[in-house]
Amino acid sequence: MSSIDHFWAVVPAGGAGTRLWPLSRRSAPKFLHDLTGTGRTLLQGTLDRLAPLAEDRFVVVTGRAHRDAVLKQLPEVGPERVLAEPSPRDSMAAIGLAAAVLERDDPDAVMGSFPADHVIRDPDVFADCVRTAAEVARDDWLVTLGIEPAFPSSAFGYVHLGDPLPGHPGARAVLEFVEKPSVRTATEYIATGRYRWNAGMFVVRPTVLLDLLGRWHPEFAAALRAIAAEPARLDELWTGLPKIALDHAVAEPAADAGRVVSVPSAFRWEDIGDFDSLAALLAGDPQPTVLGDEALVQALDASGLVVPASGRVVAVVGLEDVVVVDTPDALLVTTRARAQEVKQVVAELADRGRSDLV
Amino acid sequence: MSSIDHFWAVVPAGGAGTRLWPLSRRSAPKFLHDLTGTGRTLLQGTLDRLAPLAEDRFVVVTGRAHRDAVLKQLPEVGPERVLAEPSPRDSMAAIGLAAAVLERDDPDAVMGSFPADHVIRDPDVFADCVRTAAEVARDDWLVTLGIEPAFPSSAFGYVHLGDPLPGHPGARAVLEFVEKPSVRTATEYIATGRYRWNAGMFVVRPTVLLDLLGRWHPEFAAALRAIAAEPARLDELWTGLPKIALDHAVAEPAADAGRVVSVPSAFRWEDIGDFDSLAALLAGDPQPTVLGDEALVQALDASGLVVPASGRVVAVVGLEDVVVVDTPDALLVTTRARAQEVKQVVAELADRGRSDLV
Repeated sequence: MSSIDHFWAVVPAGGAGTRLWPLSRRSAPKFLHDLTGTGRTLLQGTLDRLAPLAEDRFVVVTGRAHRDAVLKQLPEVGPERVLAEPSPRDSMAAIGLAAAVLERDDPDAVMGSFPADHVIRDPDVFADCVRTAAEVARDDWLVTLGIEPAFPSSAFGYVHLGDPLPGHPGARAVLEFVEKPSVRTATEYIATGRYRWNAGMFVVRPTVLLDLLGRWHPEFAAALRAIAAEPARLDELWTGLPKIALDHAVAEPAADAGRVVSVPSAFRWEDIGDFDSLAALLAGDPQPTVLGDEALVQALDASGLVVPASGRVVAVVGLEDVVVVDTPDALLVTTRARAQEVKQVVAELADRGRSDLV
Repeated sequence: MSSIDHFWAVVPAGGAGTRLWPLSRRSAPKFLHDLTGTGRTLLQGTLDRLAPLAEDRFVVVTGRAHRDAVLKQLPEVGPERVLAEPSPRDSMAAIGLAAAVLERDDPDAVMGSFPADHVIRDPDVFADCVRTAAEVARDDWLVTLGIEPAFPSSAFGYVHLGDPLPGHPGARAVLEFVEKPSVRTATEYIATGRYRWNAGMFVVRPTVLLDLLGRWHPEFAAALRAIAAEPARLDELWTGLPKIALDHAVAEPAADAGRVVSVPSAFRWEDIGDFDSLAALLAGDPQPTVLGDEALVQALDASGLVVPASGRVVAVVGLEDVVVVDTPDALLVTTRARAQEVKQVVAELADRGRSDLV
């Protein structure tokens, strides 16, 4: 299969991944780590997945502190295509900046935005979905990828699908975005067959995105276009940008205005939020699952996830669903069931003045 | 209180303490470690406890590999009083060698033998017991310290007490030594009030000990005396010595022959066999117990024992009765209930060629 004409992959690479401490740190967030044991980081995996569609047409948007690390991991993406945010301003600013740059550079561009820290296990199914989405987006729709829910998650937002789009049998109208529901509500959603997970992946023409933004936030759109026209004004204009997610700034009002469609697909998608979901993703035989050098782990009647990332031997005896993450300067021991609470440990370490570790 | 005239403290410092891996190693067995958080190792604690009784009259018997470490930890014991065993030959050879040296050097000596890796929490009660035992030993008895059982342990041997010794109201005849009983049998023993734990601590005149040995193992006793007379023959004679525990070689047959008495006492005594017993010994508030620098441990809803011995931060979340032992080259994660099985991990590491770690 050939790549998609004028298709640009935009990769916002942000977020701390605090619940994946001590692997993930402020100084090295989760997208910079190989969490799947493939030898490629999540960021690299994102590009690997998109390269057949975008060839070398990438724009990565990341924090200034991470720009060097991103460039090092992605030598194929030139420095002019790794945009550095002066400060975190949420997803609308990050993705909007990429849109403004692409609008300036390629009038025929269709962009797809794909977070740097997702894991997708069916790259071909994913690619088909993106191809369809790109075709639909050329007709000026804001297109979201609608992921078939694997279970009634209360951790993700959903899109509520309407009728198929005339002329685009692979796409469905989006009636609305719904925030994270209860498990019960999610179960009801799934039973209707008309709800999909919203994973924040969408495809759109840059001008369409910025024009939609301009309908509800005209100064925001103008500022992004001004930065693209005069990059030297980045610092000056950036601090004034609202901190708002793209979903709230554009996708939700655009859905209400009938401008959003979804391409449903069944690729297996994972957002590795914590060590429990990482353990589930990697789970296999033998137990415990080892992310790293198996020769370093000596287990006896144990299950769960062991990450021997310091080079030391890790011995685990008689613990079920345990999580052991061993790094050169910090060690975490918890259980899969309590993995969410790692966030609190990180907060307490920061409170105690150990920001060197978080 | 003054010291005991001509009283010599003999400290056999042997045993690997495999179940305390990765703190305890072949290269640094448990007696070389501060396992109680006092700033003194078990070996140093043993000497601290005995110094009021023995002043500077110590003989330490240890393996050749550990002699330098022992000398470094005990600068107050001169090199001529730290005897190095050419190879491990069990307790009869180790203690018998000390006895032969003392018989040679001090005809009025009374020796007490005290393993280097015990913890005793009532040093004054212990000292009173040893004083009584030394008085009794001058009348040519083999005197064992009879520890009041804290619970019906199936892990220790017991001494069966007979009547009080005429002329020595603090001492009781020993009818027999009994091997580790079942918990049920131990419970019955304790109910009679006539059984005490045998912790391998005894007091005796060196000549009495060697003469008793000579009754059942004449060549053994002769070899020990030959080494004392001609230390240059140590290597030559040592390899021929039987590998046998003092209890079997002397104490049991001597008890049958009516030559053993016990001084019962109620000092609190601990043999730190594994991380479960160490956790019990150190247990207090807050939980988990930290052996080492508490500032390195960040716990959330956790109990058990954490040993942060590598300088790294250790975070523990949502685990009860967990054991985490963090050393520079190896990490152990287990539970108090499974702490005994650490021995198997060590065996497997050795099998896998990681003898550098065991």
